[in-house]
Amino acid sequence: MKMSDKEEPKKFTKHAPQDGSASLTPKLLYNKNVARPSHAEYARTIASKMHVATLCTVSERAEGFPYGSFVTYAMHEGNPVFLISQLAEHTKNLILDSKASLLIAEHGEGNPLAHGRVTLVGHCTLVSDHERDAVKESFIGIHESAKAYCDWDDFGFYKLKVDSIRFIGGFGRMSWVNESKWFDAEPDPMIESAEDIVEHMNDDHSDALVLYCKAMSKATETTEAVMTTIDRYGFEMIATTSEGQHPIRLAFKNQVNSSESARIELVKMVKEARKLLKSE
Amino acid sequence: MKMSDKEEPKKFTKHAPQDGSASLTPKLLYNKNVARPSHAEYARTIASKMHVATLCTVSERAEGFPYGSFVTYAMHEGNPVFLISQLAEHTKNLILDSKASLLIAEHGEGNPLAHGRVTLVGHCTLVSDHERDAVKESFIGIHESAKAYCDWDDFGFYKLKVDSIRFIGGFGRMSWVNESKWFDAEPDPMIESAEDIVEHMNDDHSDALVLYCKAMSKATETTEAVMTTIDRYGFEMIATTSEGQHPIRLAFKNQVNSSESARIELVKMVKEARKLLKSE
Repeated sequence: MKMSDKEEPKKFTKHAPQDGSASLTPKLLYNKNVARPSHAEYARTIASKMHVATLCTVSERAEGFPYGSFVTYAMHEGNPVFLISQLAEHTKNLILDSKASLLIAEHGEGNPLAHGRVTLVGHCTLVSDHERDAVKESFIGIHESAKAYCDWDDFGFYKLKVDSIRFIGGFGRMSWVNESKWFDAEPDPMIESAEDIVEHMNDDHSDALVLYCKAMSKATETTEAVMTTIDRYGFEMIATTSEGQHPIRLAFKNQVNSSESARIELVKMVKEARKLLKSE
Repeated sequence: MKMSDKEEPKKFTKHAPQDGSASLTPKLLYNKNVARPSHAEYARTIASKMHVATLCTVSERAEGFPYGSFVTYAMHEGNPVFLISQLAEHTKNLILDSKASLLIAEHGEGNPLAHGRVTLVGHCTLVSDHERDAVKESFIGIHESAKAYCDWDDFGFYKLKVDSIRFIGGFGRMSWVNESKWFDAEPDPMIESAEDIVEHMNDDHSDALVLYCKAMSKATETTEAVMTTIDRYGFEMIATTSEGQHPIRLAFKNQVNSSESARIELVKMVKEARKLLKSE
C-alpha cells in the first residue's frame, strides 16, 4: 500500500468543495486557530462512539467485487474487532482474501454529508489464541448479548489491523491520517457525557450560550445560540444574528474530561463573558 | 460473476444461526405461512426507504483493497444512483475500476443485527447523457439540497447497475435474491405511512392489538401487545404472555396501500376478533 505520512491540505476547487457543500466560504466569526481535536483524535472518537459499521471485503461469489456487509464491532487497542460466523459471506471472503476496510459513519440530524466518518483499511484475520481473551473482553464490553454465543464453534473473533485511515469530518475537512498518529491518539473523554451536556445547556442555559457568542466571538449581535457539540478542547454553537446562522467554536482554558470539569469551565466562561461585555 | 437463481434455504447449524441470534427456535405462536413480503420486496423496500449507505469500491491508493465510503443515494428504476465529486476517493476508484457494491442497512432500536440490510453488487459508472435528466430527477427528488451543485463540473451522476443482491432480513432470514425478481418487485406502498400507523396503534389502540393476539394467534393469553411493523400484507406485534414475549404476524384479508385502506382492514379485524372470542 502507498500511504502518505502527511495530512493532505484541504482541496477546494473553484466550483465546489469535495463533498458538495453548497455554501462553502461564509465569513468565519470565530478564531480559526481555536483548539480542536486533531483529525486522528476525531477519527478515533468516531470509531469508539459507534458500534455498527460496514465491513468491506473482496467477494468470493461475485468474483473480485468489493462486498459491503453490516457488522457490529468494538475497538481494541486502536483496531476494530468483530465476532463473525463462518457461514457469513464476509467471513468466507476474509478466509480467501484478508484485504478489508471498515467504514464507520456518525449518525445525526440535518445534511447527512455534514457528519463525520472514517474508513479503516487493512488486513482482517482471525485473532490469534494468545490475544483472544483480551479481544473477547473488549467485544463483550460493548456487545454484551454476544456473550451467549461467542464461544460457539461457528464464531470467531477477527481483527482488522489498521494500516491506513481516511477521515472525513464533514464538508471540506478530510485527510489521510498518519498511522502512528492514529494509534497514539485517544478518543475524546467526553464521548459518553457530550450528548447530555449539550441537551442541558440548550434546555437550561441558552442565555449563557448567547453571552459566549456576544463576548467571545465576532457574532456580537447574536440573538439566539444552540450548542451542537462539546469535546475536551471546547464546544461549538450555531449563533443566529440578523444576517443568518453562523457556526461558532470556542475553546476551554483548561481541557475537560468529565461533566464536572466541563461544568466548571462553562461557568468560568460565563463570568468572563459578563466581564468582557461590561468593559466594552 | 456466478449467481444463483434460487433463494437459498435458511441455513442453521447445530450451534447457532448465521447472524448470531442467541434464542433461535422459540415456539411460533402464529401461522408460519402467513402472507409476508418476499425477500425481493423486502429488499426493494429497504433500498427505497433509506437514503444513505456505504459504497464499496476497489481502492486505487491502497492497491486492491476494498474501500468503504459514506454516500447519499436514490433509487432509479431499481438501481441506486449517486451524485459524486471527481475529487472523492470513491470516484477516483470507480474511474479506474467500476466494480462496486452498496450496503444499505435499516436503522432501528434493539439488537442491530435484527434489522434488515441489503447489498447490491454490480458495475458503477457515470450515467450516460441520454439518461442523465431522468436520474437527476430521481436524485433531486430525495436529496433536494443537491440541486445547488448537481450541475457543477466537478460532480457527476453515477449508477450502480444491480447485478446481484444479497438480502439479510435479520436473524436466520437471508438469501441471494434473483435479479429479475429484484427488478420486478415493488417497494412496499406503506413505507411513508408505516411509522405513523404503528405509533397511532400503540398509543391509542393497544386494546385492539391484544384482541388480535388473543383471537387470531396462539398467544391466547396475551396481556399486552405492541405493534412493530406494518406492510401491504399484514402487520407484526410483540405479544406478552406469562411465558414471555412472542413475535406475532397477522395478515390482512385484502392488501393495503395507504393509511386509509390499512385503517379499514384493522377495524374489520377488530370486529372479526370480537366475534371469534365470543363464539369460543
